[in-house]
Amino acid sequence: MPDKPNSPLLVAFVASASGSWRIDRINPVIGEGLPAADRLEMVERPRAQANNDVAWTLRGVTSNVRYTKQNEITALAEREQALGRPAATRAALIPIRKNEAWWALAQDERRAIFEEQSHHIAIGLEYLPAVSRRLHHGHDLGEPFDFLTWFEYSPEDANAFEGLVRRLRQTPEWRYVDREVDIRLSRI
Amino acid sequence: MPDKPNSPLLVAFVASASGSWRIDRINPVIGEGLPAADRLEMVERPRAQANNDVAWTLRGVTSNVRYTKQNEITALAEREQALGRPAATRAALIPIRKNEAWWALAQDERRAIFEEQSHHIAIGLEYLPAVSRRLHHGHDLGEPFDFLTWFEYSPEDANAFEGLVRRLRQTPEWRYVDREVDIRLSRI
Repeated sequence: MPDKPNSPLLVAFVASASGSWRIDRINPVIGEGLPAADRLEMVERPRAQANNDVAWTLRGVTSNVRYTKQNEITALAEREQALGRPAATRAALIPIRKNEAWWALAQDERRAIFEEQSHHIAIGLEYLPAVSRRLHHGHDLGEPFDFLTWFEYSPEDANAFEGLVRRLRQTPEWRYVDREVDIRLSRI
Repeated sequence: MPDKPNSPLLVAFVASASGSWRIDRINPVIGEGLPAADRLEMVERPRAQANNDVAWTLRGVTSNVRYTKQNEITALAEREQALGRPAATRAALIPIRKNEAWWALAQDERRAIFEEQSHHIAIGLEYLPAVSRRLHHGHDLGEPFDFLTWFEYSPEDANAFEGLVRRLRQTPEWRYVDREVDIRLSRI
């Protein structure tokens, strides 16, 4: 976690032959996928890359909320759990890119699509505290993906997690997604 | 300008002995100032630094709007002018950092302070088309300043610009500013 709770934290997701998470599968959902790899490490505050045998590295930064209102922050905070729970041995890394039309929208238009039309926050709330998550932004870093969301859950909650992912992909918000990869992992 | 109008554009403001803009003055407004330098260059899509004699470099990225609603975007677009007008031989670079309390606020709280209480957009509109501006975000890049705003105006509009800056500094939004430097420049 960052020293100051709202300071941006740069995180690199490094896929190679080593790491704390075994990559179980990499599925392209929309657009181009990502190369296969055996393991993944989530590196907070990464330094210059030392390993030459990296399959891919995706970077993103935690940041202030962009759409969440005060009452929603309160509701989320009452239920959400931190990353790193021992029972949460399953993980998903879901990189997403949104299209030009999304980024050209005004703030009120994006908020309306995100929550009033797609219920992104409300749907997510239903899966708390079972699913822990952390969102990383890559858009302003010039990364290939705009968002990297990291989820952790227990094997017992794996079916519930599939429901969460399925429901979000059916929302109006997802019409603006032009690349999505679904990476599933198990803690070693 | 970026190839795609809403693609983030990384910009470096490099202060050294050379550059297209003469630095007329650097005034600390809130908190620590910046070292003196003779010239400034605004470098779009900067590559690795070649010059060793740089006094300071500030970086930021243009991005999607964070608070502006659709009707406000329309009002701004009807009046605003691009950078680089030949008559606009004066410029201001105003780096700002906001405190932890600002970044911990929910989206609706920040919007209310920014516009409903402080009228940031409405005040800015009064100074269009005289003042051209471009906003660069540094918060998620780990930069010392969260925002770098670059303004261009003609000598005849210099007094009006002072009014704009003075009014914004009196708003409730500015109570969250914990560092601000005011840099004024002339095109060479």
